[in-house]
Amino acid sequence: MERAGRSSTLGSSDEVELEPSGTSATIHLDMTAGGGSSSSDFNPFGAIDDVRFKTDDDLPDVMAPPFFSKYGDFHTIDWQRDLARDRLRHKMISKKKVDFPLGLLQSGWDAGAGWICVLFVGLAAGATAGIIDIGARWMSDLKTGVCADRFWLDREHCCWSSNDTFYKDDSCSAWTKWPWMINYYNSSSLLFSFIEWIFYIGWAVAMSTLAVLFVKIFAPYACGSGIPEIKCILSGFVIRGYLGKWTFIIKSVGLILSSASGLSLGKEGPMVHLACCIGNIFSYLFPKYGLNEAKKREILSASAAAGVSVAFGAPIGGVLFSLEEASYYFPLKTMWRSFFCALVAGIILRFVNPFGSNQTSLFHVDYMMKWTFIELVPFALLGLFGGILGSLFIFANIRWSRFRKNSKMLGGNPIYEVMVITLITAAISYFNPFTRKSALSMIQQLFDRCEDQVEEDSLCDQNKALSIAFGQLLWALIFKFIITIFTFGIKVPCGLFVPSIGMGAIAGRILGITVDQIFRAVQATPGHSEYFTCQIGKDCVMPGLYAMVGAAAVLGGVTRMTVSLVVIMFELTGSLEFIVPTMVATMFSKWIGDGISKMGIYEAHIELNGYPFLDSKGEYPYSTVASQVMRPSIHRQVADEMSMSDLRELKNELSVITESGMTLGDLESLLRQTDFNGFPVVVSQNSMHLVGFITRRDILLALHTARKTQPYVVTNSIAYFSDGVPDSVPGGPAPLRLRKILDMAPMTVTDQTPMETVIDMFRKLGLRHVLVTKNGKVLGIITKKDILQFMRNKDSQ
Amino acid sequence: MERAGRSSTLGSSDEVELEPSGTSATIHLDMTAGGGSSSSDFNPFGAIDDVRFKTDDDLPDVMAPPFFSKYGDFHTIDWQRDLARDRLRHKMISKKKVDFPLGLLQSGWDAGAGWICVLFVGLAAGATAGIIDIGARWMSDLKTGVCADRFWLDREHCCWSSNDTFYKDDSCSAWTKWPWMINYYNSSSLLFSFIEWIFYIGWAVAMSTLAVLFVKIFAPYACGSGIPEIKCILSGFVIRGYLGKWTFIIKSVGLILSSASGLSLGKEGPMVHLACCIGNIFSYLFPKYGLNEAKKREILSASAAAGVSVAFGAPIGGVLFSLEEASYYFPLKTMWRSFFCALVAGIILRFVNPFGSNQTSLFHVDYMMKWTFIELVPFALLGLFGGILGSLFIFANIRWSRFRKNSKMLGGNPIYEVMVITLITAAISYFNPFTRKSALSMIQQLFDRCEDQVEEDSLCDQNKALSIAFGQLLWALIFKFIITIFTFGIKVPCGLFVPSIGMGAIAGRILGITVDQIFRAVQATPGHSEYFTCQIGKDCVMPGLYAMVGAAAVLGGVTRMTVSLVVIMFELTGSLEFIVPTMVATMFSKWIGDGISKMGIYEAHIELNGYPFLDSKGEYPYSTVASQVMRPSIHRQVADEMSMSDLRELKNELSVITESGMTLGDLESLLRQTDFNGFPVVVSQNSMHLVGFITRRDILLALHTARKTQPYVVTNSIAYFSDGVPDSVPGGPAPLRLRKILDMAPMTVTDQTPMETVIDMFRKLGLRHVLVTKNGKVLGIITKKDILQFMRNKDSQ
Repeated sequence: MERAGRSSTLGSSDEVELEPSGTSATIHLDMTAGGGSSSSDFNPFGAIDDVRFKTDDDLPDVMAPPFFSKYGDFHTIDWQRDLARDRLRHKMISKKKVDFPLGLLQSGWDAGAGWICVLFVGLAAGATAGIIDIGARWMSDLKTGVCADRFWLDREHCCWSSNDTFYKDDSCSAWTKWPWMINYYNSSSLLFSFIEWIFYIGWAVAMSTLAVLFVKIFAPYACGSGIPEIKCILSGFVIRGYLGKWTFIIKSVGLILSSASGLSLGKEGPMVHLACCIGNIFSYLFPKYGLNEAKKREILSASAAAGVSVAFGAPIGGVLFSLEEASYYFPLKTMWRSFFCALVAGIILRFVNPFGSNQTSLFHVDYMMKWTFIELVPFALLGLFGGILGSLFIFANIRWSRFRKNSKMLGGNPIYEVMVITLITAAISYFNPFTRKSALSMIQQLFDRCEDQVEEDSLCDQNKALSIAFGQLLWALIFKFIITIFTFGIKVPCGLFVPSIGMGAIAGRILGITVDQIFRAVQATPGHSEYFTCQIGKDCVMPGLYAMVGAAAVLGGVTRMTVSLVVIMFELTGSLEFIVPTMVATMFSKWIGDGISKMGIYEAHIELNGYPFLDSKGEYPYSTVASQVMRPSIHRQVADEMSMSDLRELKNELSVITESGMTLGDLESLLRQTDFNGFPVVVSQNSMHLVGFITRRDILLALHTARKTQPYVVTNSIAYFSDGVPDSVPGGPAPLRLRKILDMAPMTVTDQTPMETVIDMFRKLGLRHVLVTKNGKVLGIITKKDILQFMRNKDSQ
Repeated sequence: MERAGRSSTLGSSDEVELEPSGTSATIHLDMTAGGGSSSSDFNPFGAIDDVRFKTDDDLPDVMAPPFFSKYGDFHTIDWQRDLARDRLRHKMISKKKVDFPLGLLQSGWDAGAGWICVLFVGLAAGATAGIIDIGARWMSDLKTGVCADRFWLDREHCCWSSNDTFYKDDSCSAWTKWPWMINYYNSSSLLFSFIEWIFYIGWAVAMSTLAVLFVKIFAPYACGSGIPEIKCILSGFVIRGYLGKWTFIIKSVGLILSSASGLSLGKEGPMVHLACCIGNIFSYLFPKYGLNEAKKREILSASAAAGVSVAFGAPIGGVLFSLEEASYYFPLKTMWRSFFCALVAGIILRFVNPFGSNQTSLFHVDYMMKWTFIELVPFALLGLFGGILGSLFIFANIRWSRFRKNSKMLGGNPIYEVMVITLITAAISYFNPFTRKSALSMIQQLFDRCEDQVEEDSLCDQNKALSIAFGQLLWALIFKFIITIFTFGIKVPCGLFVPSIGMGAIAGRILGITVDQIFRAVQATPGHSEYFTCQIGKDCVMPGLYAMVGAAAVLGGVTRMTVSLVVIMFELTGSLEFIVPTMVATMFSKWIGDGISKMGIYEAHIELNGYPFLDSKGEYPYSTVASQVMRPSIHRQVADEMSMSDLRELKNELSVITESGMTLGDLESLLRQTDFNGFPVVVSQNSMHLVGFITRRDILLALHTARKTQPYVVTNSIAYFSDGVPDSVPGGPAPLRLRKILDMAPMTVTDQTPMETVIDMFRKLGLRHVLVTKNGKVLGIITKKDILQFMRNKDSQ
């Protein structure tokens, strides 16, 4: 079982096991509690397969055991090294190509592996999404009743299958309401409603409790939306088990339960997480991807696209989401493959879809909505509102999450928290027709246009019903906003897309109704401006369009997505006509939101959890140079003015290894005395000229092996990292050759390199550390952690 | 005038002036003829504003004159340096922010400048495209006749405005055919047709000749498609005047003329070029962008997106095209702005559009086309065909272009070439109904479905007319293929999108008709397979869909676009239904195409012209390390095994400057004896430890200034690049302090760094050179030119 595997890997596994994480404190605690060393910046494994110093004739066996599980938990991967490893593997296969037919076959398989893998991922993601959709719908209807004859049908199918009975107001005789089950039929009485209410709450609490129990017991990583973690993983962070099969199973089941429970959460974020789990699981069928963390991220990028594709029925939006939000190191290279994966997933979802509707998109709007230019003003207002609401939400949610992390009472009792939130949500939302129905059907109703002769929809009635609906909408908005703040972060699988869209749709519809009334009032006055001469509800002021624009605005304010958001909204609705209003709202939302606080909800949660995520988009106009950030730090003066005596002082702070002259004992005591994960190798302590870099793990392994296998190696043996090794030292023990384990191509920058350039190098080359030099001498080191620390300090200033 | 300005900049300006370039030899000649030095790799200007070594207190005046025109023609820009310069500028403005209100205003203006600029670009690009569309349509109709009453109307409007007359077969009485003008009315006679033919040819030749004359006389850069050059410019190459206002004006006019002449060329590629011209011109309104080549490329990325947006009416496709094909250094950062720009341009085009049609897309297909799964086989076949045809086209076109470059006769007589090609095109295409009409209306006809009761369309008649049309299509395909090979590359503005789409549409329709006949035949036989039980032309086998898929396949084969192609095709037609067939065809086309030859038409032309373009997408599995590529090269053995004596030999080949000890005379003789554009500065000739890097231009400037302004500086003065400069040298002249002009943050790699990593650094960090070090000593230098040379050698192996 995977859990057991993970426990054995982690030292302090109890914490991770017992504390569900997601957007919680545990991962953070686990990281910082890991000994205080910069453990996430260095690779403690993988000495044997470093290929930088190898020439053509000297290919190591890359399929050797240490090839696997190269990185520790919560470590950052070294892109350059992993990609170099893959190139080596590729070259070996190319060499074998001449061996007909096996080599050719292997070569062909290798070339097509990526496509086959994403094909599988797409198929599986589509199927999973379909099953979850069906399950969630059935369970959601369970709160109101059950299909008497065929219990496995949801209400809609139950009513369809018994088409002889009446079907009105979303109900039919075949659908047995709970009061009927206990033989109470007086449906107009208060008691009937009360029984319904009790069942509604009971089922909701039961479902969410089951979800949180599953998460807590079987897969703590299955909670939350998962997108912050996916962003980190794609940026090169390793979280063991986060994309494992247990997480996948529990998150699927938990997602059905939690979304059916009527909590204010969405399935879309978790769907991206699930798709990435699928990508991870399938990648193990292809060693090229499964055993190489950097290559695996190519598959994961495509999987994220597939996740959005099935979540919204938006393949192009999915690709753009993966590009804009998720992918990190090779956005363009994987674009085409992501598109393929997203499309396959979308097609499969449509096949699986048992509801007979012919559309792939979540909210299909199959009519032309028109708008006039004057309406861009309310659209912009919606954008402003979305930006403010989004920022408010982020602020409040982060404050609450931080409180939850620090509070013993809350953090220790995730189950009670979920139960209380569900109880409150169910109890209150039952009384409002908009919050009572599922979020998706509420949004669909809000997006819909008013048909000419429809009386049933309270939103379209121009009489008293409308003002009641107006009040209900306002109330729903406030309730949704408050409850979502507390919901996002509880220990069940929960996404944020649908609640955001919901809030936005309500706000938009409210504004739409208002504008509609204003237009009607203006048109009623004689001699009104020509701007207002349009056919309301046909040529202008479609309240449904306002709901759609509002949805984009709030979603933009919360997530700070841009192009992908507009394209998703466009694919959700299917007409280019709406791009302009959506874009105006998104733009204002983003401007205002960024003005209030730069971080979207995902970045805020990444920061809250302390993940080592280096945003690939921002610009940092700092005026700092590398020597001011590196460790050991220079306090007294800038490096530019350093004299040689300062350099000498520095040397004592920086632990280095000389390429020759140090004995085995020296090395061992250095390893004991320091907790650095790597050491620069220099020509001599005096000159400090850089030769290469070596990781702690590599030395440990080498020394251990040497002591074991070479009996003539003793504590006094001199270790040589240079070429010119004497065959024997006169009067001393035999020397130890260690050049092979030396990384001869460490990345370096000079002390005067501006930090922007250094940050750019970290982001674009996927580095874990750089060495800082001056006149060829090593001064210090900058790790990814130092960069993040530096940026955080700068931001807080 | 800009031309004059350009002439004065270039040494060998005559060549550029007289020889229209585009896809021609001139730029290449001009580059290599520039003295044989690595002139495109180093920045010969811009000493004063290098900020790397500056601290906060020491901000230079970045708005000083050398700020402008920093780079020479055909030089590569230094992204890191330009962006550093922009950060500095930004910081100065941020500092001023406190000065209310002027500082705040300036700060706000600075923040919004990018958006305002792309707004203008979008507006202008949309308007330009609209005007060109109107102009080209009018001129195109001029070949057949003229509107008698209102000569400024094209045929369609002429017939509309005189709605009392008959209007059939694309003609009406108000539209005066040329034979009528010379009073010959017997329209059924052979002479009538002959006169029409002569006028058709005459107008065509006149228009194309005028176009080539304009290009040759006023703006040699206005010819060709421009996309290869745009790709290079966005990757950081400087081509003076390529995006200037004369190029813009002449290319606009020339494009109207050339596309009206009936040559087998499209307006779409040139439209991207025009949009980039607009972007370049508007960027000068905003010094932030106009005066900083790296920042300017942000605007140009957005402009390219706007260009595709107006060319195809595909804003999302435009953004993806810019991302996938054009943008280089910051694809994601500019995405949102590109989208805005593309959208504005698209909206404006629709407003300008005088044809009353309500659609933004080029070919609107306003019906649902269906397909069955068995049809994926012919779609895949179309993909294969497209890949092969595309590769064949690239091969033949490049061979012909190379022949044209090397042939005195052809290369020297672009005007005659254009005239001959036009003559042949017009004379032959007149006799085929598909090639005779404009390419766009041909494509529209091929894309269209067969209405139930339409007899006029020969493609829909199930009788004899169809077999005639089949033959005509086959003939049109062969003719188009051959003539386009010779057309793409002539010295008029000419794009390749529409001819490719045209060829693909013909091929697709041919296959569509064939499959249609097969299905009919199978359905006629009793007991046929259930796969074939569908309503032909409704549920399956829409020949129009085949045309569309074929268009995508051939366009994919020629350009090797992927996601952007599918999205453009999707936006062209407007339904998600077609994504799957399009994608299948594109995928097969790309696989086959890449199997035959890796390069698309644009990359092939970039290589033909020798532009320094480093593709940002490819992977290079080399097994070479930096020391094997650097100059001076080490022939005898790999650097790993180099002894100190080898190093000493190397030193004599590498020209370095020592940080102290060299006299002014030494420096001047070094500059005279070598033609390198930059020199590493080292501690001493013995140690070779790297201090920094200095460009030839910077030393020249500094020495010149020193000689002029400081009378005590003489040939024997010692130049100091270090801190510790003595105030005076005993018994010698006063020292010269040059530390300020030294770049203290050169990029370095070690000699053992794999070339893939080095290439990655060049691509992702936008470098122009790196220094190769070993143990802190400088060994050599790798420039972008060396990298390209290395990759070319590897490819040819």
